[in-house]
Amino acid sequence: MEFLSSHLDRLRSERPLVHNITNYVVMNTTANALLAVGASPVMSHALEEVEEMVGLSSALVVNIGTLSKKWVKAMELAMDTAHHLNKPVILDPVGAGATSYRTKTALDLLLRNHPTLIRGNASEIAALTDANAKTKGVDSSLDALDALTAAKKLAVQFDATVVVSGQKDLVVDRSQVWEIANGHSLMASITGMGCCASALCAAFAAISSNPSEAAVTAMASMGVAGEKAAASASGPGSFFAGFLDELFRLDGESLKASARVREIAS
Amino acid sequence: MEFLSSHLDRLRSERPLVHNITNYVVMNTTANALLAVGASPVMSHALEEVEEMVGLSSALVVNIGTLSKKWVKAMELAMDTAHHLNKPVILDPVGAGATSYRTKTALDLLLRNHPTLIRGNASEIAALTDANAKTKGVDSSLDALDALTAAKKLAVQFDATVVVSGQKDLVVDRSQVWEIANGHSLMASITGMGCCASALCAAFAAISSNPSEAAVTAMASMGVAGEKAAASASGPGSFFAGFLDELFRLDGESLKASARVREIAS
Amino acid sequence: MEFLSSHLDRLRSERPLVHNITNYVVMNTTANALLAVGASPVMSHALEEVEEMVGLSSALVVNIGTLSKKWVKAMELAMDTAHHLNKPVILDPVGAGATSYRTKTALDLLLRNHPTLIRGNASEIAALTDANAKTKGVDSSLDALDALTAAKKLAVQFDATVVVSGQKDLVVDRSQVWEIANGHSLMASITGMGCCASALCAAFAAISSNPSEAAVTAMASMGVAGEKAAASASGPGSFFAGFLDELFRLDGESLKASARVREIAS
Repeated sequence: MEFLSSHLDRLRSERPLVHNITNYVVMNTTANALLAVGASPVMSHALEEVEEMVGLSSALVVNIGTLSKKWVKAMELAMDTAHHLNKPVILDPVGAGATSYRTKTALDLLLRNHPTLIRGNASEIAALTDANAKTKGVDSSLDALDALTAAKKLAVQFDATVVVSGQKDLVVDRSQVWEIANGHSLMASITGMGCCASALCAAFAAISSNPSEAAVTAMASMGVAGEKAAASASGPGSFFAGFLDELFRLDGESLKASARVREIAS
Repeated sequence: MEFLSSHLDRLRSERPLVHNITNYVVMNTTANALLAVGASPVMSHALEEVEEMVGLSSALVVNIGTLSKKWVKAMELAMDTAHHLNKPVILDPVGAGATSYRTKTALDLLLRNHPTLIRGNASEIAALTDANAKTKGVDSSLDALDALTAAKKLAVQFDATVVVSGQKDLVVDRSQVWEIANGHSLMASITGMGCCASALCAAFAAISSNPSEAAVTAMASMGVAGEKAAASASGPGSFFAGFLDELFRLDGESLKASARVREIAS
Repeated sequence: MEFLSSHLDRLRSERPLVHNITNYVVMNTTANALLAVGASPVMSHALEEVEEMVGLSSALVVNIGTLSKKWVKAMELAMDTAHHLNKPVILDPVGAGATSYRTKTALDLLLRNHPTLIRGNASEIAALTDANAKTKGVDSSLDALDALTAAKKLAVQFDATVVVSGQKDLVVDRSQVWEIANGHSLMASITGMGCCASALCAAFAAISSNPSEAAVTAMASMGVAGEKAAASASGPGSFFAGFLDELFRLDGESLKASARVREIAS
């Protein structure tokens, strides 16, 4: 798919500023993933500056992984601003389905300001449409395909691109479903890979007019870098260092050559 | 000791959810250590959800490394809930003995809700029984054995298992004292090793009916993984990546074979 | 320059406690850099304890990378205390020039309590003297030399040592300008290198009577460790692990031998 290489090349040359309101656990991890892929990360959550920072940025990531009341206010203000300025917003509903506060906050943010993209694991995505779906903390108890119906429903309801991460990833919008079959099991043994995927969706959405192609490129980049890193890793520690290395070294041609992306019956 | 391998095997098969209210510096580090050893970490500190998250989890870590008033309220609520639900709680009194706020907070939390385990370095443990003990920031100025009396006193007073980390680690309860002689000096050159030890104590306590055996298994796992990682490290950076790798690869048999654990005269 | 080796040797033997009020993204990174170079880091931001923690520490780092109102209050109180106790303070105005809140906060902190050292990239330093200077998030859009005039102005106005990080680093005070030509481009592809530089400035200032020599030693140590790490790195992930290793292994003699420091016409 031609857009894979053109998106990566464009990201590298434009180096978009990506504004992250994200959780404490992964701030360092996602900043490094954004730098490695070629974007410029900034983290900022003060009510005094989020509007101005969104104005400077080319995309916004909102991730509720360690949410609290004040941070949710900053997320709302940032999303309102991005909506008003027509900038892409990625919502990562970390732990939706685990506690009612997370599920409710994710739904409130969704309803308030229809984000461009929503990315979660299967349990999190399912929890956004089904009050009975359960998430084990921040880990999924479902396969990505189990959340396909939920993802389609969200895509239609919010006119958004929905990404379901898993062994195989799905990218779903109103009219299409892509499957990305890259990745490696070690990615589930290091924290923040899902959050990095959301950040990369933002980076590619920042330089693309097509959020779904941006998301497919992000997930393929994650998966291909993960596979390459796993090939020489001895465990999750060496894997993560290698993952940043491979993401940094990835070029458009090798991404296109290694990506296992296909459209599936939708 | 048979329980070393059976505990590790059980952790790997049960994959318990461990709820962490911990400091900003080590959130990523401890999440990765928990994943590597086989547990499922979640970080959550919002008053709106800590009760529900404790209810979902199999153990709770409370670590005061970057405390503030609001976070202490969340710690109190989480500990109250865990106490009520009879779930194991690990208190890590980071920096007790350095400032009076830390010492007082650690003591308040101890008195309010007798935790199952307390883990600190020798200075921190000493500071909980002796108002004159001094901690250099978050680093100990004592050897583990210097805190044995303090550890015993705390173990009796709070009916808790007390872990004193150091060159050799001690696990102390009402009736027994274990010494774990594994580990490597590089572990003191990377931040968060003590916090990881507390998190691993929680993970093993989550799947064990014996908190002291859980703590011995946690400290031996830390020490054995640290020794193995140090053997091929060039410094603290490569050490930490290797530490996660070794923790991930550790199995019950090699833990039992490499652990240097003995009961000492108590 | 003789002071390079004597400063590093002294840091290693004194192991000063460095108090950091810094951003969430880099707390782990800077704690590890401080440990690797031989200092003892502590992170603390509670109003209840910052005065006492400053009293225990030998230097203070104030970094506004993820500022918010409450944290700024802690920064003010900590800087007031350090000023009163005559302890070195390093201000890192992360993102000054990006949002008006950051620029204003940095200037307020500067004016309130003239810090000993100020370290930023060229855009950040320029923004402190020129309301029209613009910073791209937290990344510079200028070369270090572009900020030389601004640095000199700040050095005189606040009687401070000003460090401008870039491909070549500058250390500027009332009477001198040093250029440090060490470093590697990979350092810009990992988050927190600037924040580490500020933390190392604090560590060396803690054991030195000469803040400018302390800053030159810090920047040379960063650059030399970065060059050595880059020589065997495959990308930013392996680079960062190697950077901590090299910082840990650096000794006074090899620092002196590898440092490319010169005084330039001021």
